[in-house]
Amino acid sequence: MRYAVAGVRLGVAQAGIKKAGKDDLLLIALSENAQTVAVFTQNAFCAAPVSLAREHLALSHGQPRYLLINTGNANAGTGEAGIANALSCCAALGVRAAVAATAVLPFSTGVIGEPLPVERVESAIPAAFDALQPDQWERAAGAILTTDTRPKLRTTTLEVDGRACVITGIAKGAGMICPNLATMLAFIATDAAISAPLLEELLRNAVAKSFNRVTVDGDTSTNDAVTLSATGESGVVIEPGSRHASDFSRALETLMIELAQDIVRDGEGATKFVEIHVVGGESEAACDQVARTIAHSPLVKTALFASDPNWGRILAAIGRAGLEGLDTEAVSIEINGVVIAERGARAPSYTEALGQQAMDEDELRLRVSLQRGAAESLLWTTDLSYDYVKINAEYRT
Amino acid sequence: MRYAVAGVRLGVAQAGIKKAGKDDLLLIALSENAQTVAVFTQNAFCAAPVSLAREHLALSHGQPRYLLINTGNANAGTGEAGIANALSCCAALGVRAAVAATAVLPFSTGVIGEPLPVERVESAIPAAFDALQPDQWERAAGAILTTDTRPKLRTTTLEVDGRACVITGIAKGAGMICPNLATMLAFIATDAAISAPLLEELLRNAVAKSFNRVTVDGDTSTNDAVTLSATGESGVVIEPGSRHASDFSRALETLMIELAQDIVRDGEGATKFVEIHVVGGESEAACDQVARTIAHSPLVKTALFASDPNWGRILAAIGRAGLEGLDTEAVSIEINGVVIAERGARAPSYTEALGQQAMDEDELRLRVSLQRGAAESLLWTTDLSYDYVKINAEYRT
Repeated sequence: MRYAVAGVRLGVAQAGIKKAGKDDLLLIALSENAQTVAVFTQNAFCAAPVSLAREHLALSHGQPRYLLINTGNANAGTGEAGIANALSCCAALGVRAAVAATAVLPFSTGVIGEPLPVERVESAIPAAFDALQPDQWERAAGAILTTDTRPKLRTTTLEVDGRACVITGIAKGAGMICPNLATMLAFIATDAAISAPLLEELLRNAVAKSFNRVTVDGDTSTNDAVTLSATGESGVVIEPGSRHASDFSRALETLMIELAQDIVRDGEGATKFVEIHVVGGESEAACDQVARTIAHSPLVKTALFASDPNWGRILAAIGRAGLEGLDTEAVSIEINGVVIAERGARAPSYTEALGQQAMDEDELRLRVSLQRGAAESLLWTTDLSYDYVKINAEYRT
Repeated sequence: MRYAVAGVRLGVAQAGIKKAGKDDLLLIALSENAQTVAVFTQNAFCAAPVSLAREHLALSHGQPRYLLINTGNANAGTGEAGIANALSCCAALGVRAAVAATAVLPFSTGVIGEPLPVERVESAIPAAFDALQPDQWERAAGAILTTDTRPKLRTTTLEVDGRACVITGIAKGAGMICPNLATMLAFIATDAAISAPLLEELLRNAVAKSFNRVTVDGDTSTNDAVTLSATGESGVVIEPGSRHASDFSRALETLMIELAQDIVRDGEGATKFVEIHVVGGESEAACDQVARTIAHSPLVKTALFASDPNWGRILAAIGRAGLEGLDTEAVSIEINGVVIAERGARAPSYTEALGQQAMDEDELRLRVSLQRGAAESLLWTTDLSYDYVKINAEYRT
């Protein structure tokens, strides 16, 4: 069974929150001793399920038994009623599964501001519960999607002293063309045994290098969440400070970067995958600021969509990124290895033909050198196309 | 002669920088004692003409004799050669007009990063010079446009002790759908006599309430500039601290707000004019931060384009605007007088029909109340349409 993680079962159902005949409810069951950690959105308007999941994670001492995920409705901007509705779903599952409501972490994604159709969720819970199986990762990956065009599912195996452990994860999110505005959910599990503090550290480190490279903490949607569960069922134990911990950390990071990049590649209306690598800054934060200003510029993004080597728009974005005393003469820009600007102006070696050739690729690696220091920052983004507007103008209508 | 300002003459020519047969060069001649003040972009990559105009304004002690404006090429990101090219154009005009090169302020707008076609500009200077007349404001307003679909020209007359003085201004800029990324130019003149310090104060105050309500200082294009010239030819003298100064200030502010709103209404691909009014913040800066986060959100902007009352996206934008300790329960949102959200959730009185009716208007007044203090902030913006992408993807191709 490819993808399967010992101690994890998944069940999918159709609750009718989305159109009839669409999977829109996912239940993930975790074995009794599984340890779970999570990071959540920092949006002040965090959705009801986010508040409740955070609370239940604490109340269950990091050992929830179920993750209950619905799509089609974000249960965000729904006030007190939203909390009551999310709790009601947790309680309904609790009754069915004979666990406390606090052993259930709820997650929602979809339209903001509409009441959660609690009855539909609750009436589909038995079907999801009865469907729980270890081999349902592929269907689960499909069930959590909204405007995504394809599932995001990754797995990796790690050898530890002759024994194997597995890490498998699913993710959703496609509004990343302008990072941080759409809901990003990811659920990752391993059958290694890992203590809560180490698990927390592993998740935070990997998130910083993966999902936070396409989104920023202070600038997230109302519903973003990433969970990492360790069941220990493989018998592999990862001890803090060990070489195995480093290996596991690297494997987890790689898997999460793959999932994060899958999200970008499936960005709403995306026709380009764009890596922005800013080097030579005085700090990682300064490099990040420049990378995000470029990545968020509609003028840069539409030029990328048009495969137009309009590097002047990139220069203009760097110039307004707010770096103190930027020496524009020191700035250079490369796209896919072609030096397009240096000393703050068009590179002498640059030709429109070379620029066009570089821009015609589907994968663009943009490298900006600031020559102010030794720090750097990586960011992944997409272009801005007609289809982005279409998808987001028509999402509800 | 409607629009005419005594002491100001304008001449338009076709230099062939844009397509043949298009006005792309404007010369504004100012009388000998005219006083000029200006505000320029704060982008670190300011264009060559911006550097030079700033320098020449100082060297001419605020009394330049000519403003030389070309469209079709921004002369930005062009390094040392760009400065030399801009200076060469000023010198060529200086020879023709028998003034020092430093008496000429150069302005450019158009594609960034291409060398300025100096010979074309210089060869068209005589035609522009010979065409100088006081009644050319309308043609001048057309000559400075790039992706704009219509000219922006406003005039007003002020009575001062039985004598009349005129204020007339032209502006260009249409990329304001995502504020601050496209070049905004405005040239304003009056035949009142106003001392340099007062003129400076009048311009800064009016810019803060007009053009800076659609753009922000730290976040401007490489070429943004606004000039205000006072010729004194009407015989009207505006003294600092006088009632006339207040009247003039109000008239100037109104005219500049009209020009700024004209720019927004002509925003690239704009189908909606959107006013964002954030009230009840702890400071104007906090209100402004919220207004800009809403105005820059592609998800909000595409919903506005779709006339979709998707207020959840507005809530989400407010939530990630970075206000410390935001009480989401205190937030309410109105669109054109319809309360759509209050206490951080959908308003009990709200119906989709009411929301739809409000959103169907071409002019949307969005009012966000934070209930944290007494400060407020106004911002004008537009929606994000297919045509925005089309215009900006195809601008060079």
